[in-house]
Amino acid sequence: MKRVITISREFGSAGRTIGKLVADKLGYKYYDKELIVKVAEETGFSQAYIKERGEYSPSASAFSYSFMGRSTDGMSTDDYLFSVQRKVILQLADEGNCVIVGRCADYILRDREDVMNVFIHADKKWRAKRIVEVYGANKYRPERRVEDKDKKRRINYKYYTDREWGDYRNYDMCLDSGKLGIDTCVDIIARQAKNAD
Amino acid sequence: MKRVITISREFGSAGRTIGKLVADKLGYKYYDKELIVKVAEETGFSQAYIKERGEYSPSASAFSYSFMGRSTDGMSTDDYLFSVQRKVILQLADEGNCVIVGRCADYILRDREDVMNVFIHADKKWRAKRIVEVYGANKYRPERRVEDKDKKRRINYKYYTDREWGDYRNYDMCLDSGKLGIDTCVDIIARQAKNAD
Repeated sequence: MKRVITISREFGSAGRTIGKLVADKLGYKYYDKELIVKVAEETGFSQAYIKERGEYSPSASAFSYSFMGRSTDGMSTDDYLFSVQRKVILQLADEGNCVIVGRCADYILRDREDVMNVFIHADKKWRAKRIVEVYGANKYRPERRVEDKDKKRRINYKYYTDREWGDYRNYDMCLDSGKLGIDTCVDIIARQAKNAD
Repeated sequence: MKRVITISREFGSAGRTIGKLVADKLGYKYYDKELIVKVAEETGFSQAYIKERGEYSPSASAFSYSFMGRSTDGMSTDDYLFSVQRKVILQLADEGNCVIVGRCADYILRDREDVMNVFIHADKKWRAKRIVEVYGANKYRPERRVEDKDKKRRINYKYYTDREWGDYRNYDMCLDSGKLGIDTCVDIIARQAKNAD
């Protein structure tokens, strides 16, 4: 039984939907970006608080310290937000039985044995079509929106982890949701989480 | 139902074993390097024949032509062998119901709808331990043997396909056999091949 499932995903690949359905199937809690921000706020770390706090008080974690040298007035807000998110993710993993989407959770939890890491991807055309269906059209070409989001995720992941986003070595499984279908991805992940040592 | 399954794999990741077990489970034929060479010979293309033929007679395929300019006396033996293997793989795929391990089969069959591409990988330590169990020790460190073989596969794949070996975009699924276990990988692949559109 894997108590924590992290899902990294290309934009538009249905990774969030798959994560939600896996959580429902297993009776796990589901955390995505919004929930993590919420939890951060609930613990007292509002974004404003994080910003101010970041300027004067280094985080207690060694990981966060490694970013301290980057500017003379302390961590950037992004870095501090990352460090708080990291703490929240570590706490959520301790509580267990959850699915965490994005936020470098695979990297943050890399030393835990009870974590399964999944990467969801799909053909760019499939994703471009899907984001228009799910999020609606806007003034940018959907292929362009997909490329931009992926680029940001890739850069963010590289910056905070020094690893390549989507490198198969970092995941128990990488699944093509466009080819396999959303339901099949959910089945494979949920079954494996249940059966794993 | 996917009629053809290609398996690419890191050295020592049990990809061959997994391919064989998937084939047994589905009642599919199983082709690895040795069998492809055998089929090449059965069609009249012995290695000696291939070599001689390559010097005087260009292959009929456009793909092989693209390598013709590399030396004044025609294709290298490697290139010609690749072109023959390519033809054999295309024939085997036409016959269907088979598992093909390695030999850039995922790339060669990229235009077929009835093909499922799988990449099998595992932690280097896991693989180093396994190759000693399966193939025995020799004078080289097992980690070194694993690295060398992977490097050769990576270069070969890049050379013939102009794609990155192990790039998740090229596979329906990438599975970590060390983490998931051999039997689980077999189950996931066989089930998906049976259920796929």
